[in-house]
Amino acid sequence: MTLSEAIKTVEHIMSEIINSDVKVLRDASSHILSAGGKRVRPRVLMATYAALGGTDYVYAAPVAAAVELVHTASVVHDDINDHGVMRRGRPSVNAIWGRTFALLTGDFLFTKVYELMAPYRDLNIDMAVATSALVEGETLQAAAVKEQNFTREVYYEIIARKTAALFRAAAMMGAKLANASEATVEALGHYGYNIGLAFQIVDDVLDLTADTAQLGKTSGIDLAQGRGYAAAYNGNGHAGVGTAVAEVEVADDVVDSIKRKMLAGDAIQDAKAKARQLADFAIASLAVLPESQGKDDLIAVANYVVDRQY
Amino acid sequence: MTLSEAIKTVEHIMSEIINSDVKVLRDASSHILSAGGKRVRPRVLMATYAALGGTDYVYAAPVAAAVELVHTASVVHDDINDHGVMRRGRPSVNAIWGRTFALLTGDFLFTKVYELMAPYRDLNIDMAVATSALVEGETLQAAAVKEQNFTREVYYEIIARKTAALFRAAAMMGAKLANASEATVEALGHYGYNIGLAFQIVDDVLDLTADTAQLGKTSGIDLAQGRGYAAAYNGNGHAGVGTAVAEVEVADDVVDSIKRKMLAGDAIQDAKAKARQLADFAIASLAVLPESQGKDDLIAVANYVVDRQY
Repeated sequence: MTLSEAIKTVEHIMSEIINSDVKVLRDASSHILSAGGKRVRPRVLMATYAALGGTDYVYAAPVAAAVELVHTASVVHDDINDHGVMRRGRPSVNAIWGRTFALLTGDFLFTKVYELMAPYRDLNIDMAVATSALVEGETLQAAAVKEQNFTREVYYEIIARKTAALFRAAAMMGAKLANASEATVEALGHYGYNIGLAFQIVDDVLDLTADTAQLGKTSGIDLAQGRGYAAAYNGNGHAGVGTAVAEVEVADDVVDSIKRKMLAGDAIQDAKAKARQLADFAIASLAVLPESQGKDDLIAVANYVVDRQY
Repeated sequence: MTLSEAIKTVEHIMSEIINSDVKVLRDASSHILSAGGKRVRPRVLMATYAALGGTDYVYAAPVAAAVELVHTASVVHDDINDHGVMRRGRPSVNAIWGRTFALLTGDFLFTKVYELMAPYRDLNIDMAVATSALVEGETLQAAAVKEQNFTREVYYEIIARKTAALFRAAAMMGAKLANASEATVEALGHYGYNIGLAFQIVDDVLDLTADTAQLGKTSGIDLAQGRGYAAAYNGNGHAGVGTAVAEVEVADDVVDSIKRKMLAGDAIQDAKAKARQLADFAIASLAVLPESQGKDDLIAVANYVVDRQY
C-alpha cells in the first residue's frame, strides 16, 4: 500500500467517525475535514509505521485519524479565539455556524479522538501528553501576547508545545504500532519533533509572505494578534506588536510596517534557514532505518515541510 | 474506607493532574475545581464500586476524577456560550480570565481526562461515548433554541445526552472496575441514567425557584436562553421563549412572566414528581445488589438528587 492509499484509509475513518445524528456537528465537522488540509501529521505516522515494517494499515490508520482530529479540533477552537474567518480555503466553522457551535464542534472532535484511541492502551498516554502540550502551547501564546512577553525564547517554547509535540507523538506512535525498539521510537520522536518545529516556523513565515488565497486562511493573522515568528523577532527579541492585548487586534498600518521590515531584512531568510536545518536534523534521525519506501516518504515529508509555498 | 474518604482521594487526584507549568491553566483549573460542586458523578462511581465489593480505591479513583473533569470542562465551556458569570458560588472562569483562556482551560481539562483514562483500556470506550453524548446534547440544546423547536420530546432527548449519559457511564464504569457481571453493569447503568435525568430536571426547576446566591450560579439563565424545563413546558410543548435565537437573550420581563406562570401552576410540582419517580426507578435497579454501605450510599445519592434545595 502506498502512502497516499494509506491516507485515503485515514480519510475514510475520519468521515465515518464524525457521522453524528446531530446535524450541525456532522455538517460542521464534515465541512472542516472535507476541506482537506495537508494531512502532514497522519502522513508522518503512516510513513513511520511502514518504514518500520508495519503492513496492517487498518490497525494503524485509526491512530493517524485521531492525530488529525486533535489538530482539526484545535484549529476550530483557534478560529474562535482569533476571529479567523477563512480556513483551508473555506469560511471557518466559526464564520458559518457561529461561536457556540464552533466551540461544540471542536469539543465533539476531541471526544472522537477518545473513541478512536480507546483500543490502543499503550498509545493513549502519548496522545494525552501531546494533546495537553498543544493546549498548553496555545495558552502560553495567548498569555505571552497579553503580557507583552513574546520573546524568541517564549516563541520556541510555544511552538515546541503547540506543534512539535503532536508531530513527535505521531512519529512515536507510528513506531510503537510497528513494535519498534525503544531506541528507534526515540529516534523517530526526534524526527517528528524537529519537523514539527520546522513546520511551524515555515507556517509563520508563510503567514507573512503568502496571500490569503494561497494560504487558504487569513494571512497576517499571527502578526495582527501580536504573536508568531515576526512578533518574536521584531524589536530585539521583544514583540514590537506585543502591545496588542488578547482579543484586541493591531491596527493594519502597524502590521504593514512590521511586515515591510521583516520582508526587507534578513529575517525571512534566517527563519527559512532555521527550518531547513531542523529538517536536516530530522532526516539525520532516520539513519536508524533500513532503506524503504516508507523511509523515502519520511524524507519527502521533511523536505515538503520546509519547501512548501503555502 | 467511607464514601467521603473516597471522594477526598478523587479530589487529590484532580488537584494533582491539573498542576501544569502554564500558570493560567493551573490557576483557572484550580479555581473551578476548588470551588467544590456536588461531586455527584464521582460519588455514583465510587459508591457503585464499593457496593459491588471493590476495595482498591486507588485503582478506581482516577476514573471518578476523569468523570468529574469531563463535567467540569463542559461547565467551563457552557459558561462561555451562555455568558455565565457565576459558577459554584464564584465568578466563572470566563468572567475572570476571559473567553480565550476559558476555552483553553476547558480543552485542557478534556485532555487531562485522556491522561487519567489511559490505563483503563476497557473503560475508554464508555467514557468516549458518554463524552460525545454530552457534547451532542449541548449542541441539540443550542440548535433547539436557535430553531425555536424546544419541545418536551426534544427536552428529554437533550437531558438524556447532556446529563444522563455521563451519570450512566459513571455507574457502569464503577461496576466494571469491580468486575461485576454484565447484567449487574446493565442494572447500574439504568440506575445512573435515571438519576441523571432526575438530576437535570431538578436542576432546571432550581434554576426557576432558587436565587443566585443559593444556586452558586446565575439563576434563570436557562429560561433567559430559551431552554430548560420551563421553556419546554411553556406554551403547549413549544417554547414560548424559543423566539430567542442563540446568543441573544430574552428580555427580563418575558422571563419574569414565564417564571410567574411556571411557579403559579402545577408545572413545578409535576417536574418534582417526575424527578421523584425517576429516582424511585433508579433505586429499584439496585435490587440486584446485596445490602452494604455502598448500596445505602447509592440510595442516599438518588434521594439527594431529588430532595436537594440547590
